[in-house]
Amino acid sequence: MRISIIGLGLIGGSIGLALRNWAKTEEGQAANLELVGFDAKGKQKALADKMGIFHRYTATPMDAVKDADVVIVATPVMAVRDTFEDIREHLKPGAIVTDTCSTKRQVMAWAKELLPTTVSFVGGHPMAGKTASIEKADPNLFKGCTYCLMAAVGVKEEALETVGRLVTIFGANPYFMDPAEHDSYTAAISHLPFLAAAGLVNLVGSSQGWREMSRLASTGFQDTTRLAGGGIAMHLDVCRTNSDSIIGWIDRYQQQLSELRDLIEQAGLFDELGRPKPESLSEPAGLEKYLKDAAETRERWQASRQMSQSAEQASGVEMPTSKELRSNYTRMLFGSLFTRRRPGQDDQNNPAGPNPPDHK
Amino acid sequence: MRISIIGLGLIGGSIGLALRNWAKTEEGQAANLELVGFDAKGKQKALADKMGIFHRYTATPMDAVKDADVVIVATPVMAVRDTFEDIREHLKPGAIVTDTCSTKRQVMAWAKELLPTTVSFVGGHPMAGKTASIEKADPNLFKGCTYCLMAAVGVKEEALETVGRLVTIFGANPYFMDPAEHDSYTAAISHLPFLAAAGLVNLVGSSQGWREMSRLASTGFQDTTRLAGGGIAMHLDVCRTNSDSIIGWIDRYQQQLSELRDLIEQAGLFDELGRPKPESLSEPAGLEKYLKDAAETRERWQASRQMSQSAEQASGVEMPTSKELRSNYTRMLFGSLFTRRRPGQDDQNNPAGPNPPDHK
Repeated sequence: MRISIIGLGLIGGSIGLALRNWAKTEEGQAANLELVGFDAKGKQKALADKMGIFHRYTATPMDAVKDADVVIVATPVMAVRDTFEDIREHLKPGAIVTDTCSTKRQVMAWAKELLPTTVSFVGGHPMAGKTASIEKADPNLFKGCTYCLMAAVGVKEEALETVGRLVTIFGANPYFMDPAEHDSYTAAISHLPFLAAAGLVNLVGSSQGWREMSRLASTGFQDTTRLAGGGIAMHLDVCRTNSDSIIGWIDRYQQQLSELRDLIEQAGLFDELGRPKPESLSEPAGLEKYLKDAAETRERWQASRQMSQSAEQASGVEMPTSKELRSNYTRMLFGSLFTRRRPGQDDQNNPAGPNPPDHK
Repeated sequence: MRISIIGLGLIGGSIGLALRNWAKTEEGQAANLELVGFDAKGKQKALADKMGIFHRYTATPMDAVKDADVVIVATPVMAVRDTFEDIREHLKPGAIVTDTCSTKRQVMAWAKELLPTTVSFVGGHPMAGKTASIEKADPNLFKGCTYCLMAAVGVKEEALETVGRLVTIFGANPYFMDPAEHDSYTAAISHLPFLAAAGLVNLVGSSQGWREMSRLASTGFQDTTRLAGGGIAMHLDVCRTNSDSIIGWIDRYQQQLSELRDLIEQAGLFDELGRPKPESLSEPAGLEKYLKDAAETRERWQASRQMSQSAEQASGVEMPTSKELRSNYTRMLFGSLFTRRRPGQDDQNNPAGPNPPDHK
């Protein structure tokens, strides 16, 4: 079995390492894995080679995909289109192509537009939450993480099973989704937090008082703004390929902040002109409820996250049974969410994606 | 020397522990420290007693401050007024009173209104960045942190020196500031990040897709929203006593987000109706610059923070020389920032505090 990875960054490298470990297992030995790597930058190939990740490296993406059973495109989103154009005529009929990009509608559209019908495309996105380069590649990077998968229209069930199986080999949990849903949800829980952090940094960093403020800023500021500190190239691509979903969420975030602003005004001991007002005129109940709601929501999320992580640890890197995988496929293929809409159709006019939030 | 602490939470307890350690030093032994603790809740006193923090505990705040040379009020902000009313007639002439609250204008105003002129009040705020209860009290909590100090009008220099010295005993760096400056700066780097996090959690938590989103949310969401997970009582008090500064910063944050939104629209591969547009019509340069600026600002801040922390570690808990302390006092007493304005005067009409940011 030949698996080729195009794009040797943290994700491509970590997948490679996970597969190398798998190759030593009984199943892996039976599969007789050959791992081929390509990156447009020679430096990345040299680093991967130094780490002993791939069996061989090729000079072009065309050479990399030749006779490959599975091709994993792990480049930045905006490089996917060119990669598909490069490899399309060199893919073996029956090959499976997947990717690891952070936004999915655009990648699915490019796959539909450019890849031959003789191959199966399954979009993928590991929710591994880390920005770093290949030097930090780690075979356990995906352990216990949710790995979103998206099937192109008409894709063969065997292809889904193969990619689902690969994901479990990486130690992750396959999670089938609709691309528009994926892009809206990740805009909310991943892209917006990054942008909120970047906005916070630029706000305070461009203010006259920043020199003194920066002395006062502590661990709270550090954690809240951590995402803004790196991965700019990746996030730029994310913003470009998910601009409409992101803008929808920024608009709703602004509404939240306006609501919060009003509650602070009601609770405050100062009036709108900054003059002290009597404590009896301050109404803190609404603000208190708002802040408690947030703390409780976050606490519940943390608890369920820890629970699923410790369940994961307890079971080791357990593979889902084929029955579990099948029910997952069933949801995707026949579930109401998936059959209700398709990316590029009725969702296109809804910048919020398929599930606009229910505003309080 | 008798030091009384009113309010036995994380801060009061940690100060107590730091002072108990100091009491074992030569200087501490010479001072013959007696540490007195009071909390309105018996449970807090019992916990502090179990940890062996104080020499004795009193039944009332009036008893606690009797014959005390230094009184440290470490209650929530909104409890300070009542505390001042309780203790005002029981303070020894010449006593020094300080506090540890997160907002300072209101506390300074209450001190001016309520405390007798026979005592010296110096406002204090350790930038220790942690919310927890007394069980987590730690004598090293303040090690290397910036500890903001604010002098009431006409306070004696000896009082400033004593409080400055205490702060260095806690292992922190005294930093003299104007109260309005303090409240505006902390609104930007502490209160706004908390509120931005709470807004983010309530936005996604109230959306229809939260059940699925919560599966996808990972370490990025976790860190960005960490502040929203606790300390609600403290943050509620902060919002009430700093409402005007905070609202000013929320307004400016909204402007930042609008700017960012426009840049994403320009860079996006989707138009305002969510329809794909040709890549040639997408202009990512502005967004790229914005994100790079944020990453660079944060990187510089992190670097200077790490530098000052390792300088701190290299020097141990070095006390500033009296010359250093004096130059600090000079800045406060005669520096242009401080003499330009006074809290309660011309800043009251400026919700941004003294230094409105310079918008890009």
